[in-house]
Amino acid sequence: MPTGAGEGPVRGVMVHRLARHHDLRGDLYSAEVGGGLPFEPLRLFVVRDVPSHDVRGQHAHRTVHQFLVCLAGECTLAVDDGRQRLEIRLDSPAIGVHLEPMVWAAQQGFSPDAVLLVLASGRYDADEYIRDYREFLALVEA
Amino acid sequence: MPTGAGEGPVRGVMVHRLARHHDLRGDLYSAEVGGGLPFEPLRLFVVRDVPSHDVRGQHAHRTVHQFLVCLAGECTLAVDDGRQRLEIRLDSPAIGVHLEPMVWAAQQGFSPDAVLLVLASGRYDADEYIRDYREFLALVEA
Repeated sequence: MPTGAGEGPVRGVMVHRLARHHDLRGDLYSAEVGGGLPFEPLRLFVVRDVPSHDVRGQHAHRTVHQFLVCLAGECTLAVDDGRQRLEIRLDSPAIGVHLEPMVWAAQQGFSPDAVLLVLASGRYDADEYIRDYREFLALVEA
Repeated sequence: MPTGAGEGPVRGVMVHRLARHHDLRGDLYSAEVGGGLPFEPLRLFVVRDVPSHDVRGQHAHRTVHQFLVCLAGECTLAVDDGRQRLEIRLDSPAIGVHLEPMVWAAQQGFSPDAVLLVLASGRYDADEYIRDYREFLALVEA
């Protein structure tokens, strides 16, 4: 377990702390492989301008790891391993959440200024997504 | 040269376009290795809350590649290969700039809401930075 990482009650979900370097020229938050960043990313995506009533995500990945950081504003990440469910409010760039494969996740409650960064361990592959919750549960229980 | 990338007059500086996926649930911008993201990152850092009169950066890297995207607000990236200098206004998450090693770079003109994401190809190593412009010029000319 990397320094600063904490595993919660939902299997495959670890909260990391990004290092914060504050000075008069602003704030810098950082993480690197071996220190807060749990894998080498092959893909990044950024979600912005989400209406506050909308829910994004609502899927699991078969093989891909993800690392989520809300870089501005705030949003809520809901995670579910098929047994336990947890909501994590992402309201600081110092919070990075590592989702291992086979975690059902959704994001909601976006503030108007929210900027959610997601790093993924694999390239985009539509077949790698599980979008049906019953299928997810069946795979978890198998 | 990856699709959507453009090399400008400053050696080692390439502008990439991130894919934008817009729908009623918000905007998603993405890039991946082989499609807009020019290397596998080992480090990320995020710069926020920079006073508008401040200048950040002002160094070159000996061996590390960087990929800069302004995810919210805007700022200006100044790049210099020792021969030519160029300013690039980063005012959209669709603009990603790849800086190869041995490019002198600075960032300035941050809007109050600016969030600058930098992905780096190597872990943090203070010895890998060139912070003296005369040393940079001497190395470029050597």
